[in-house]
Amino acid sequence: VDNSELLSAARLFDTRSIGRILSLVENRTDDGRTVMRELFGDGGNGYSTGITGPPGSGKSTLTSVLVPHVLQDAARVGIVAVDPSSPFSGGAILGDRIRMTNHAGDDRVFIRSVANRGSLGGISNTTPAIVAALDGLGFPEVLIETVGIGQSEFEIATTADTTIVVLSPGWGDAIQVSKAGFLEVADIFVVNKADREGTHGAVADLLAMLELGTGAGWEIPVIATEATRGDGADEVWDSVKKHRMFLESSGAMHMRRRKQAAAQLAAAVRQTIDASVDYERDATDVVSAIADRVIDPWTAAERILEAQ
Amino acid sequence: VDNSELLSAARLFDTRSIGRILSLVENRTDDGRTVMRELFGDGGNGYSTGITGPPGSGKSTLTSVLVPHVLQDAARVGIVAVDPSSPFSGGAILGDRIRMTNHAGDDRVFIRSVANRGSLGGISNTTPAIVAALDGLGFPEVLIETVGIGQSEFEIATTADTTIVVLSPGWGDAIQVSKAGFLEVADIFVVNKADREGTHGAVADLLAMLELGTGAGWEIPVIATEATRGDGADEVWDSVKKHRMFLESSGAMHMRRRKQAAAQLAAAVRQTIDASVDYERDATDVVSAIADRVIDPWTAAERILEAQ
Repeated sequence: VDNSELLSAARLFDTRSIGRILSLVENRTDDGRTVMRELFGDGGNGYSTGITGPPGSGKSTLTSVLVPHVLQDAARVGIVAVDPSSPFSGGAILGDRIRMTNHAGDDRVFIRSVANRGSLGGISNTTPAIVAALDGLGFPEVLIETVGIGQSEFEIATTADTTIVVLSPGWGDAIQVSKAGFLEVADIFVVNKADREGTHGAVADLLAMLELGTGAGWEIPVIATEATRGDGADEVWDSVKKHRMFLESSGAMHMRRRKQAAAQLAAAVRQTIDASVDYERDATDVVSAIADRVIDPWTAAERILEAQ
Repeated sequence: VDNSELLSAARLFDTRSIGRILSLVENRTDDGRTVMRELFGDGGNGYSTGITGPPGSGKSTLTSVLVPHVLQDAARVGIVAVDPSSPFSGGAILGDRIRMTNHAGDDRVFIRSVANRGSLGGISNTTPAIVAALDGLGFPEVLIETVGIGQSEFEIATTADTTIVVLSPGWGDAIQVSKAGFLEVADIFVVNKADREGTHGAVADLLAMLELGTGAGWEIPVIATEATRGDGADEVWDSVKKHRMFLESSGAMHMRRRKQAAAQLAAAVRQTIDASVDYERDATDVVSAIADRVIDPWTAAERILEAQ
């Protein structure tokens, strides 16, 4: 099967063909880059929603129960699960993944797990390309689920059109939320596991904190959910749609898409450099000089970049 | 206080001065870069041990109970705690951090928490520079504690001389360990929380898996510990010393330091590019062309790099 046949089949939403197209994109073969270029040109019409938050807050479950709501508005939905934490978190996450397979028989739902293990640059390296490829293939909606550790919540915010931050009531107080950077990326807050004690307080805390912020025309909602029962999922999806309408009517969408383009370009530059240079092999003398403390890495980097 | 005074005081291990030096390095001010260059030239004599593993395995506690053993061999120890997970993980980690403050009154122990939130490039951006600075200031031993999520365990393996992977018996089976990439980075395995059921099985599993691997002359030990009581910490530190002796006598240390130099150079190149280019501001036309789907990010990146 050549790539144009594969692409045609993927455009008809043949699951195996989509999977193979995404693998080409992910592995960054020459074929993958060709395919990616074509798909990127076709894209721009889909909408993407990021779902992030600390481990154990129930992101996978919420993603799963959002799906039927998404499918009331869209013919298809792609789910991109960025998976660095799943081998680490044991039972709970595995349970969530199994719940995801509820959608396994539904050919309107395409699920892709992205493992970034071992790659430099984290989530930014593959996920935006996978999301762009699904968009280019004609998926009207893509949900991106990623654990909010370190920097990943910032990366998702430059990939997704709407970012949902999912917390559990036991997770922490307003100061923790602020310290973790969630305040900077959230378009929508969800306090999941609403059956647990402390939900009311957590919601009130978040609302109080949000009042302190300077809104840019969008009032960030705080929604209590009990995702294992599906409670609140309708309200979450309604908020995504309202946020989309806000972005589109206010002109903010245009700005957001520019920010995404800039982030994609920055990621592509980093990728291209990482892929093209093996310093240990290509810059033997410089590496030796650093190892011998004759030059420091920062001065060496500046000289390399000046010399280009 | 100018920087040479600050450096002199830090070289005499004045805690506040060390802290201010590290902040200069971390914030990458011009002063920080100057200081870093000087410290890098002074370094190369210290030894660094990375302690990684999944959340909740007891890395902080193990780090803490290793300290008295380290201090039997070295006059001082620096602890670098890479902290992306602490705001997320709630009580357990906070408890561990409090236990760390057991060393707060001991001026032979310097503790630095590195938050990488919001920075691009994850752990690789600041941690190697902080470790190099402590080395340059004259710390004979540095312990680096970082959660093994996504790629961070790979980054620690290119920063530390010896890498300890800490697991808990309930964490998972051999397949999970292998999938998570721990097998590729571990010089020493620790199964912590040895009071729990499953320790014996976990140790046996790991040993069986390690037998399958092709050893490069170093037999990776698997040590059961109960870090909260300090049990096994002596054996862990003994293994670190044995591994160091192996690296030094076999010539592997030279190779490892070269790998570290190459990784530092790659990180410095990425940092320099990230710091120097704001694509949204500097490449307005290209960003617009990407946002309008006239060009894809990968082709744009290649053209930018070719044009340099």
